[in-house]
Amino acid sequence: MKNPVIILVQTQMAANIGMCARAMLNCGLTELRLVAPRDGWPNPDAISPATDAKHIIESAKVYSTVKEATADCHQVYAATARIRHLNTPAVTATEAAAEIHQNAQSEAGEYQAAILFGPEASGLDNDSMSHADRLMHYPMNPDYTSLNLAQAVLLFSWEWWKSRPDATTTYETSWTPAPREEFDYFINRLENLLDDAGFFPNKLKKPTTLQKIKSLFNRSNPSSQEVKSLQGILTALIGISKK
Amino acid sequence: MKNPVIILVQTQMAANIGMCARAMLNCGLTELRLVAPRDGWPNPDAISPATDAKHIIESAKVYSTVKEATADCHQVYAATARIRHLNTPAVTATEAAAEIHQNAQSEAGEYQAAILFGPEASGLDNDSMSHADRLMHYPMNPDYTSLNLAQAVLLFSWEWWKSRPDATTTYETSWTPAPREEFDYFINRLENLLDDAGFFPNKLKKPTTLQKIKSLFNRSNPSSQEVKSLQGILTALIGISKK
Repeated sequence: MKNPVIILVQTQMAANIGMCARAMLNCGLTELRLVAPRDGWPNPDAISPATDAKHIIESAKVYSTVKEATADCHQVYAATARIRHLNTPAVTATEAAAEIHQNAQSEAGEYQAAILFGPEASGLDNDSMSHADRLMHYPMNPDYTSLNLAQAVLLFSWEWWKSRPDATTTYETSWTPAPREEFDYFINRLENLLDDAGFFPNKLKKPTTLQKIKSLFNRSNPSSQEVKSLQGILTALIGISKK
Repeated sequence: MKNPVIILVQTQMAANIGMCARAMLNCGLTELRLVAPRDGWPNPDAISPATDAKHIIESAKVYSTVKEATADCHQVYAATARIRHLNTPAVTATEAAAEIHQNAQSEAGEYQAAILFGPEASGLDNDSMSHADRLMHYPMNPDYTSLNLAQAVLLFSWEWWKSRPDATTTYETSWTPAPREEFDYFINRLENLLDDAGFFPNKLKKPTTLQKIKSLFNRSNPSSQEVKSLQGILTALIGISKK
């Protein structure tokens, strides 16, 4: 399966090309194409802003026209805020990402998508946009939709990365909750101590109050080590006035 | 309904603060707080990178500590790639955004969430992270997860903006986390009592031990009522041997 290529059209600042490469790498995209970068190519100014994405910069291919840069692509999206342009259908970045994954899966390795991003100051011009079959936009705060180039590349790349079919939502807990008996032992001890302290003046309300306390500690899912800390805290607190 | 506040901790470059403000405005966020920015504040270097978000820069509030900056916040997320830290639960930026909208809806105007972002070079330190009840991360390309500051702010803000009400199915949380100052007051009292009780025999290890205890209680997101219960438990426990 081919990942989408990012095509930067007539970019003005090489540093921005570097920052785009970095944003791509964050999201697993590696193929960068450049159409007529203003200050020529290769350009040392792109290297440092690319940080660890130097290999993306070094393998970037340069073209003189959008037409050449997109020749092998099956679907071309033009990133633009001017979505009423040219009667070309407009999708959001999120929709574009989903569509690209769908097509990539059904085409079994052949399908190549590309996203065009225009120059910093003006965005894509009409001629560049005419090579796209979809306009892609970011439904931003309507009062302020201007994104810088690397941020526009990042948001598309992020949407693509998040929606890839093999994305695993890695939602790991970083600790193991203690066995219930350790937790219950702590709660029992707390209950006994609170009984001793006269914490439950109303016997009828005690079960409810105790449930609430239990649920509060339960919510933390304390580890064995943490239950030991809680036990230590109990021991310390009840010892205070003996000192 | 209050929008989440973005808190930039010990930011090194004022230009990055400007770029963060721009990214916030793109996504309808306007409240920026700064904790001890390296080069002082106000700083003219922040203005130009903020472009149209100058008003966010001008109304940014400055604090000397994370504690002060988060005192009125009900839930605090720390943006970090170090998600195995301190046994604090980790959520993705997407999950954090959904959670914040849910809480904001159920709290009818009271609930204030905050997101902490650390300095460019090093990210949030342990002490700053200990003020958070959730770690927030971006499940990026595992080979290259380093995001620059403004891009990290942008991705959270974008997720928040995309998932704001209307379309989302709401499942309610059943409680409102207490304001941070109530929680901190409890932790301070516990610390003082444990000091009295000789719970920290090793002065050097005390900060780590205390962070772990704090993180354990933090994880429950106790409500105001629950913080009161915890205070009551403390009072009860230290009174036991006086009986």
